[in-house]
Amino acid sequence: MASEKPSRNDLPQVLLLRPPPSFYLFGDQFYLSDKFQLLKAYESPLPLSEFLTTHAQSIRAILSSGGAPVTAETIRLMPALQLVVTTSQGLDHIDLGECCRRGITVSGAGTIFSADCADSVVGLLLDVMRKISAANRYVKQGLWAVKGDYPLGSKLSGKRVGIVGLGSIGSEVAKRLEAFGCSVSYNSRKKKPDVSYPFYSDVRELAADCDILAVCCALTEETHHLINKEVLKALGKEGVIVNIARGAIIDEKELVQCLVQGEVGGAGLDVFEHEPDVPSELFELDNVVMNPHNSVFTYESFQDQRKVVVGNLEAFFSNEPLLTPVKND
Amino acid sequence: MASEKPSRNDLPQVLLLRPPPSFYLFGDQFYLSDKFQLLKAYESPLPLSEFLTTHAQSIRAILSSGGAPVTAETIRLMPALQLVVTTSQGLDHIDLGECCRRGITVSGAGTIFSADCADSVVGLLLDVMRKISAANRYVKQGLWAVKGDYPLGSKLSGKRVGIVGLGSIGSEVAKRLEAFGCSVSYNSRKKKPDVSYPFYSDVRELAADCDILAVCCALTEETHHLINKEVLKALGKEGVIVNIARGAIIDEKELVQCLVQGEVGGAGLDVFEHEPDVPSELFELDNVVMNPHNSVFTYESFQDQRKVVVGNLEAFFSNEPLLTPVKND
Repeated sequence: MASEKPSRNDLPQVLLLRPPPSFYLFGDQFYLSDKFQLLKAYESPLPLSEFLTTHAQSIRAILSSGGAPVTAETIRLMPALQLVVTTSQGLDHIDLGECCRRGITVSGAGTIFSADCADSVVGLLLDVMRKISAANRYVKQGLWAVKGDYPLGSKLSGKRVGIVGLGSIGSEVAKRLEAFGCSVSYNSRKKKPDVSYPFYSDVRELAADCDILAVCCALTEETHHLINKEVLKALGKEGVIVNIARGAIIDEKELVQCLVQGEVGGAGLDVFEHEPDVPSELFELDNVVMNPHNSVFTYESFQDQRKVVVGNLEAFFSNEPLLTPVKND
Repeated sequence: MASEKPSRNDLPQVLLLRPPPSFYLFGDQFYLSDKFQLLKAYESPLPLSEFLTTHAQSIRAILSSGGAPVTAETIRLMPALQLVVTTSQGLDHIDLGECCRRGITVSGAGTIFSADCADSVVGLLLDVMRKISAANRYVKQGLWAVKGDYPLGSKLSGKRVGIVGLGSIGSEVAKRLEAFGCSVSYNSRKKKPDVSYPFYSDVRELAADCDILAVCCALTEETHHLINKEVLKALGKEGVIVNIARGAIIDEKELVQCLVQGEVGGAGLDVFEHEPDVPSELFELDNVVMNPHNSVFTYESFQDQRKVVVGNLEAFFSNEPLLTPVKND
């Protein structure tokens, strides 16, 4: 007599509010595991609050992504919730305060995206300074043979780089740019005792002393619109700003104004305040290089992310230590 | 009585066959010196051979640039010639053999362009791998909000990079890419005793063992079409090639064929076989990023080049050691 095979329906449920980006790229079996099953709220015809109330007692974990906020209101509908796992580097879509109050653990992507993000910073920076995208278009339009040489770019080597937020991404940016002969300074909540780069407690002063500002910090109440007109003017007409963190860390309206008026030299932007809407004033500016929030998106990083997400959830349901718990107090 | 002021016409003459690129950008006083004057052959209505015959006895130095070859024929018309100074990193426009036979010293740009060239290699590479130019166009055409996410790029960190020509540029490329977590191997005429990177005497074998090939060698008879279809096929469908050296080091016809047929993953090209003519088959390929031979061209590098060019010529006319003589034997 064959032994009874356990059904997938017996596996613990992990709530999914919206399909994460990986589903569009790799299909909805991307996080398949024999330790849990995904409970897809977006496949239910019920309104979310009703859906959550129905499943209130069974949901011990959420798998969240940037596009689906985990609000205090959502959390309160799930009294059994113990874990929020996110697919993203950023945590600003999760109400960390409510998680802390409720004793809910949060697990992030760890440092798996740091290298790709840092690579994007350098790529956008080189593109802006050396006019790579603009010159590529010039060549592809057949203008080189007709109109001759292209306007000069500026040198990266030897420039002074200010890194806003020296976490895992910022540190990777520093390591790369040092190899280009740049000097590094940084701003963060507090001076890091084990770091020898000059520390600036004031981001405007950092900008004033730098040629390049690389925004690599988390979006929090403190960093919202941290980069405003005063900071940008301190960076100056030759200065270049790169942002791969979150759009709202920069006051986008003021950035657009500074770029249009030539008060900042150029910008490499992966993120925007109202994504996927992008200020159309920037479309015509060759000194602005924009990417559609994909600084973390490589084929390889998705594979790493899958391992971390599945690994965290499997560890949780096996009562083992999480791979990448977030410090949240 | 006022002392007689020495006239600029008394200064020794330095032959200029064609205006160098710097004149278009900074004007024709760019190499102004009180130790020499420029003799501009291109301003004379005489045919070049007649012009050179007329000035044969007075020309002891030539200031040359990439667009104006210094051929054996030209050299033979100048029996008094002792020095060729070039504004460029490459020397392939100078008949080095004839200079050697005639005992004419050649002075190059030294290493002043190495950092900018290496920066271009990394910039083009990141652009191809992370699709920066193509994604920038996507965002600027307003497609992000309409069509959604952009196709994934691939990760640079951890990739195996093969550097063809580990001179001053190649070494700077290696230094940068090590900071990205890449592993470096190289091919050159012979193994360098003071370098620990794995050496490949065969460029096809190097390509077979790498994800990325960065062409950084000089164009010589030996390196002409060094990168052919066999090398490109060894690099493979996922492989990326970057060339900031000279177009003719790659068999361009075979490269175009490999790119169009998807036998190579992508290319970042600053140089071409028949510049400024560029193969139009590449215009539509998003995995090909092209720049108009400007990897050395930044505002800062031109200022450094001016110092080296003027410094070499002034040293020569003052009987002092040259700043950047080229080893030519």
